[in-house]
Amino acid sequence: MAGNSFGNLFKLTTFGESHGIAIGGIIDGCPPGIKLDLHAIQAEMDRRKPGQSAIVTQRKEPDEVKFLSGVFEGVTTGTPIGFVIENANQKSKDYSHIKDSYRPSHADYVYDKKYGFRDYRGGGRSSARETASRVVAGAIAKQMLNNIKINAFTSSVGDIFIDKPYQDLDFSNTESNAVRCPDSATAEKMIDRIKQIRKEGDTIGGTVTCVLQNVPIGLGEPVFDKLHAELGKAMLSINAVKGFEYGSGFCGAKMKGSDHNDQFNIDGTTKTNLSGGIQGGISNGMDIYFRVAFKPVATLIQKYETINKEGEIVEMQGKGRHDPCVVPRAVPIVEAMAALVLADYFLINKIY
Amino acid sequence: MAGNSFGNLFKLTTFGESHGIAIGGIIDGCPPGIKLDLHAIQAEMDRRKPGQSAIVTQRKEPDEVKFLSGVFEGVTTGTPIGFVIENANQKSKDYSHIKDSYRPSHADYVYDKKYGFRDYRGGGRSSARETASRVVAGAIAKQMLNNIKINAFTSSVGDIFIDKPYQDLDFSNTESNAVRCPDSATAEKMIDRIKQIRKEGDTIGGTVTCVLQNVPIGLGEPVFDKLHAELGKAMLSINAVKGFEYGSGFCGAKMKGSDHNDQFNIDGTTKTNLSGGIQGGISNGMDIYFRVAFKPVATLIQKYETINKEGEIVEMQGKGRHDPCVVPRAVPIVEAMAALVLADYFLINKIY
Amino acid sequence: MAGNSFGNLFKLTTFGESHGIAIGGIIDGCPPGIKLDLHAIQAEMDRRKPGQSAIVTQRKEPDEVKFLSGVFEGVTTGTPIGFVIENANQKSKDYSHIKDSYRPSHADYVYDKKYGFRDYRGGGRSSARETASRVVAGAIAKQMLNNIKINAFTSSVGDIFIDKPYQDLDFSNTESNAVRCPDSATAEKMIDRIKQIRKEGDTIGGTVTCVLQNVPIGLGEPVFDKLHAELGKAMLSINAVKGFEYGSGFCGAKMKGSDHNDQFNIDGTTKTNLSGGIQGGISNGMDIYFRVAFKPVATLIQKYETINKEGEIVEMQGKGRHDPCVVPRAVPIVEAMAALVLADYFLINKIY
Amino acid sequence: MAGNSFGNLFKLTTFGESHGIAIGGIIDGCPPGIKLDLHAIQAEMDRRKPGQSAIVTQRKEPDEVKFLSGVFEGVTTGTPIGFVIENANQKSKDYSHIKDSYRPSHADYVYDKKYGFRDYRGGGRSSARETASRVVAGAIAKQMLNNIKINAFTSSVGDIFIDKPYQDLDFSNTESNAVRCPDSATAEKMIDRIKQIRKEGDTIGGTVTCVLQNVPIGLGEPVFDKLHAELGKAMLSINAVKGFEYGSGFCGAKMKGSDHNDQFNIDGTTKTNLSGGIQGGISNGMDIYFRVAFKPVATLIQKYETINKEGEIVEMQGKGRHDPCVVPRAVPIVEAMAALVLADYFLINKIY
Repeated sequence: MAGNSFGNLFKLTTFGESHGIAIGGIIDGCPPGIKLDLHAIQAEMDRRKPGQSAIVTQRKEPDEVKFLSGVFEGVTTGTPIGFVIENANQKSKDYSHIKDSYRPSHADYVYDKKYGFRDYRGGGRSSARETASRVVAGAIAKQMLNNIKINAFTSSVGDIFIDKPYQDLDFSNTESNAVRCPDSATAEKMIDRIKQIRKEGDTIGGTVTCVLQNVPIGLGEPVFDKLHAELGKAMLSINAVKGFEYGSGFCGAKMKGSDHNDQFNIDGTTKTNLSGGIQGGISNGMDIYFRVAFKPVATLIQKYETINKEGEIVEMQGKGRHDPCVVPRAVPIVEAMAALVLADYFLINKIY
Repeated sequence: MAGNSFGNLFKLTTFGESHGIAIGGIIDGCPPGIKLDLHAIQAEMDRRKPGQSAIVTQRKEPDEVKFLSGVFEGVTTGTPIGFVIENANQKSKDYSHIKDSYRPSHADYVYDKKYGFRDYRGGGRSSARETASRVVAGAIAKQMLNNIKINAFTSSVGDIFIDKPYQDLDFSNTESNAVRCPDSATAEKMIDRIKQIRKEGDTIGGTVTCVLQNVPIGLGEPVFDKLHAELGKAMLSINAVKGFEYGSGFCGAKMKGSDHNDQFNIDGTTKTNLSGGIQGGISNGMDIYFRVAFKPVATLIQKYETINKEGEIVEMQGKGRHDPCVVPRAVPIVEAMAALVLADYFLINKIY
Repeated sequence: MAGNSFGNLFKLTTFGESHGIAIGGIIDGCPPGIKLDLHAIQAEMDRRKPGQSAIVTQRKEPDEVKFLSGVFEGVTTGTPIGFVIENANQKSKDYSHIKDSYRPSHADYVYDKKYGFRDYRGGGRSSARETASRVVAGAIAKQMLNNIKINAFTSSVGDIFIDKPYQDLDFSNTESNAVRCPDSATAEKMIDRIKQIRKEGDTIGGTVTCVLQNVPIGLGEPVFDKLHAELGKAMLSINAVKGFEYGSGFCGAKMKGSDHNDQFNIDGTTKTNLSGGIQGGISNGMDIYFRVAFKPVATLIQKYETINKEGEIVEMQGKGRHDPCVVPRAVPIVEAMAALVLADYFLINKIY
Repeated sequence: MAGNSFGNLFKLTTFGESHGIAIGGIIDGCPPGIKLDLHAIQAEMDRRKPGQSAIVTQRKEPDEVKFLSGVFEGVTTGTPIGFVIENANQKSKDYSHIKDSYRPSHADYVYDKKYGFRDYRGGGRSSARETASRVVAGAIAKQMLNNIKINAFTSSVGDIFIDKPYQDLDFSNTESNAVRCPDSATAEKMIDRIKQIRKEGDTIGGTVTCVLQNVPIGLGEPVFDKLHAELGKAMLSINAVKGFEYGSGFCGAKMKGSDHNDQFNIDGTTKTNLSGGIQGGISNGMDIYFRVAFKPVATLIQKYETINKEGEIVEMQGKGRHDPCVVPRAVPIVEAMAALVLADYFLINKIY
């Protein structure tokens, strides 16, 4: 089934393989009259793009978005916004060695089994390059939601984590370091850890936490399209994600009701917000916060054994320019997907 | 937006409030020719229903499903299956005290804010009673997927958890105890814990783990409708769920790539399956396993303060017959939602 | 694919076979706070139901709607509205003779081929009895759209037609005669024609015209979900419909542009409205009018030859109580489907 | 709502304004393994493109499709097919005179009212230029459906029409004349009529008939997504369409049941096929045929009065290069939309 669209009223459809001519997408349902800040869109792209710092892949891709429709004299027209991003740095030859072999913990094997064959160059459609299109759409959604604050940040790398509640963090620090951790001391440790891992030719996982503030009350459509269910799906659709929790999350599963229940203040806010800003699948006006788990990047710069199409064991050597830790570049992707979810529910909410 | 449907090709739409005349639903897209085992459907209902054991709510509801269409001479016809479950035990008067007040960590407040008012009797639409309809549909989906094994079980209650990998468990034990934990020693501890909690008038959270076996290769529709993304959404749409992880999950976020990568066997299976049976959003034929976090039930049998519509502080006294821990009854709901996701993708997969 | 839902934001899903226990549906997305006029709903049901006059089938079915959810103290709650209509008058034995045979110009043959078998009693799912559920939902949609006037009427029976523009008709006359034609002289001729046809054991086709007034400007979502495209689909989904045209329709295809173009008045209305109230797929605030063609009912009270499952020629004898002309009872169904389309776009339009 | 997608399993989403940088689309759900015949795709584009003959607009646009993804080494990969068509011949200055004025029977007025403003150049999104993207997708769908024959042709221009049943026509003649009428004598008259109309600076309407052969039994999803309902929506979504009928159509509404019923042959086919190859919304294996009404093009090369944004009467002079009759270029668009509908249902049908 056609699984490349996200959203209902604010709908993104993406296309493109990592080493094809271009990737891109169509945003259908963006309201008319939004004066697009193209610099802000490009700034989001730059947060995601490779080569931006010493701890991410050194591939160079300009990742410039070209809008083909839906914008007239700088303003959205209400018609679909088509856009493309050229794949400037294809280097397809880098990937010829994986044409007939399956890299461990990559999607090579299942794509071959599902579709009969695949565009093997750099992961093709399964490459995280596709997320660049999500960032474009998310950046536009953010402009539609300009009163809502969306702040994601790296909350852990391996076993290094921020040991403070998010309320004690200054999100304006997030972009001040390469790992996108708003706590400077922790950021430093994370960066050191990533550098060390890269030296080993290895990779490491981590988590991104995201906080949504000033979300209006009433977003979410029970019983199936609950706000957190859609946020969860959005996050789980990002490459390398293994888990999602919101509010008290997995910790909440260890708690007693008498400790977990959020007591109301007289204005309808609560004292503790272990609920994470969502009750019964509907936003309650308080901060929404959630955490997303990313596995370590599967491409190691090491020699290893794997199998080929014929089921023979072959030796492979990871090479090329890869991220030792995906989390710093995942931060803007998490924000983009959160913005897409909110934009969709924001439009839906006008019905009530 | 109309958020009460789940699935695309095998689509469930549900209706009903906890204290209305009846709940029910429509299953649209169920293939023709399935000889329905009505006893098996009722058996699933009985696993979910209240009053089934000493550690769940003592409300009595027969939860008998009545099929109105889509089944002819015991066989599905390919037309929509309409069904109802009467609300036998309404006792609406129990809830008059919450008409104008908002119970902490319930959906009362947000429903009032979103819709302007609400059916306040027992949570109305936000009650977990709605999940009975999911269990009906899931039971039918299971019959369509009869080669696929779906086994959920209680993996933790509070801080008591099974400390074995699922491979060491005998799922045939799951139904042998009231808490639905296949490890007998742990089950006993869990049951004791729940009984103690109930005595305190308190509640406790827990987790459900689910294992899907014999899933064919190729289910899942990247890039947005990845198999685990849809499973995640399905689970997060269940009442009281706060988190979802699959495969290595949040633990994977702490690992190095060299430890996390799943080495292939020559038959395409892998040695470790930290991926959890899904690569790039597509099933790879190995066991799919995931874990779902449930918060403690919000209704305590205690006296507490909260607010009413006017923003005044009022005193409430939890009463009635409530679950001290939702997890044992959630096990069949998790299985039902997993079955719905698989049924949908199973049909989609016929395209390829 | 699950084809039993209509609409996106105001979504109806129906279930039920003509001779099962009950038919019914779920309306998902109906806004909260609508005080339902149950008498008005039943009145619409009575317009559609059999046995209402001398020129329709003499089957008796009370067609009482029972609402199961989504309505609390007489007001819609914003949650899904589940409803059932019992099949009071099943008489399944009437249909045993068609169990293995295919009636000409009925859906018997294709249902058997598509689904492998069918509920053969009275057409099962393919019976127009299903439209009773549409009338329920349409009646609720009408209450949501109370400023919009929806008037359908019988515009032709066989070759007898109203030879006036709709502007010259008084819609308050529509219900004053059994054929639902607002022009009394034509109505009389139509009724005579139908009576004569019934005497012959034959049936006859006809057309329904529908006029939508006070529709706000801006409904319709180009380029695929144009307002008239959705209206067309809605009408073509009604049993026995063979054609749809709006505005100038098929006549417009014979005209010259200089005759067809609608000149503007200075207030944005047009002098001629050959466009039929829709430009580029979007309502322009003027009257929307369209015409729907119904074929003659396929069940004749005559002896005829047909084939059975084995491809043998068998003799059949049409019997039972059938409509000689479907058009009078189709009038409320056309209105209901128009109301559903408008309700959906009405909610969508709030986005802008 | 996002109305720029068509189809469920074979889904086309289009973008683009007539005078923007480019138009294009994404085909999501195209099965893998189809060896694309790019010449055949371009040939379809050439049938639709302007400037192809003496009786269509003399605008020149090469309409070359550029595929950006979803095709690898000439074969579809199962991933979304992104494509663009550059707007080579923009000449935006031609349209400055309509910036603040509303052309009669165009979408200018409603776009302004719905979206607040519009890209006024050449109709922007409401221009039939968008249909070029449909032709691309339809051409690919045709390749997927290679056993199904899809033949559309011009069946009338003004009051000149083919007075033979389609069975007596040789579809291989359709492309032999500029008006795409397979009956040579009628074609000549049509061409003369169009030339004369163009001399007058006027335009004229017409109809396209389409015949679908070798369609497998069982396509169509009652009760709402009936095959003819979806075909109707598809056709009504094409610019300038005012009506749709299939099988006996509006003529059927004048007939008696005894004349209209299709008697079966012993192989399940019927003697008369007034049903038009569809019963109860499901294909029965016989020829599907339908007719589509196109209004005359609204742009006249004449002087006329209209209104501007301020509600003042202004004089306009139609100029530029416009079609005197849209029907010859509409033939491939009708085929493309029919192919899209069939492709979608063809995939769905694999479920059964």
